[in-house]
Amino acid sequence: MHRSRIGVVLIDHPEETYAAGAAFWAGVTGSPRSAADASPGAEPYESLDSLPGGVLVELQRTGAGTPARIHLDIETDDVAAEVARVLALGARVVERREGYVILADPGGLLFCAVPVQTGADFEGHAQTWP
Amino acid sequence: MHRSRIGVVLIDHPEETYAAGAAFWAGVTGSPRSAADASPGAEPYESLDSLPGGVLVELQRTGAGTPARIHLDIETDDVAAEVARVLALGARVVERREGYVILADPGGLLFCAVPVQTGADFEGHAQTWP
Repeated sequence: MHRSRIGVVLIDHPEETYAAGAAFWAGVTGSPRSAADASPGAEPYESLDSLPGGVLVELQRTGAGTPARIHLDIETDDVAAEVARVLALGARVVERREGYVILADPGGLLFCAVPVQTGADFEGHAQTWP
Repeated sequence: MHRSRIGVVLIDHPEETYAAGAAFWAGVTGSPRSAADASPGAEPYESLDSLPGGVLVELQRTGAGTPARIHLDIETDDVAAEVARVLALGARVVERREGYVILADPGGLLFCAVPVQTGADFEGHAQTWP
């Protein structure tokens, strides 16, 4: 048995529009940004205020020329088991990274299977799969 | 003063991949589907189990040839005021529909400003804007 849930909603912007996109979504959600997060050399991930139940809303700086998009991270206590579960449901593996896997749904929509990101909120809200 | 919050995460699939995409995400989230929802002539929206705090996860059947994508609905008790707020933050209007507005963020990412969708959960979780 393992567990999983939708744990993170990521708003992805390429280099070209990241600064404007990040400032915009921080404003939309009323989330404060640190000066470090807003600097050009900052980490490629930045957290906004979370949704109820600890579901994270994050900004991701993606590669130049990639489209602005939203993707979901499925957080799980067993990445290998969760990947096997979603493959059986019709997903395909796009790329295996260190510790997580990028997948596509049957229509090509990208999502990721990642380790637990939200601690007690994961414990309280994840579903258990046989 | 008005209020708003991220109220809906929509997974959009065109006609070509809707059936497979909808079945997939129902499986990923463990959400039951009704026979009516799964029929070809069903409504263009279908709700999966919600996230904590009543944030809705919905499937949308979009037009043939459109890309599979995810978009957010910002629910609000005053659509006109919320649209004015996000325009001031850098959004642009894509299309005004009956009762709601389709917008794009500074990188072209689509989202919508819609009336309250989640009732008491909106009351409990929305932010207030001056």
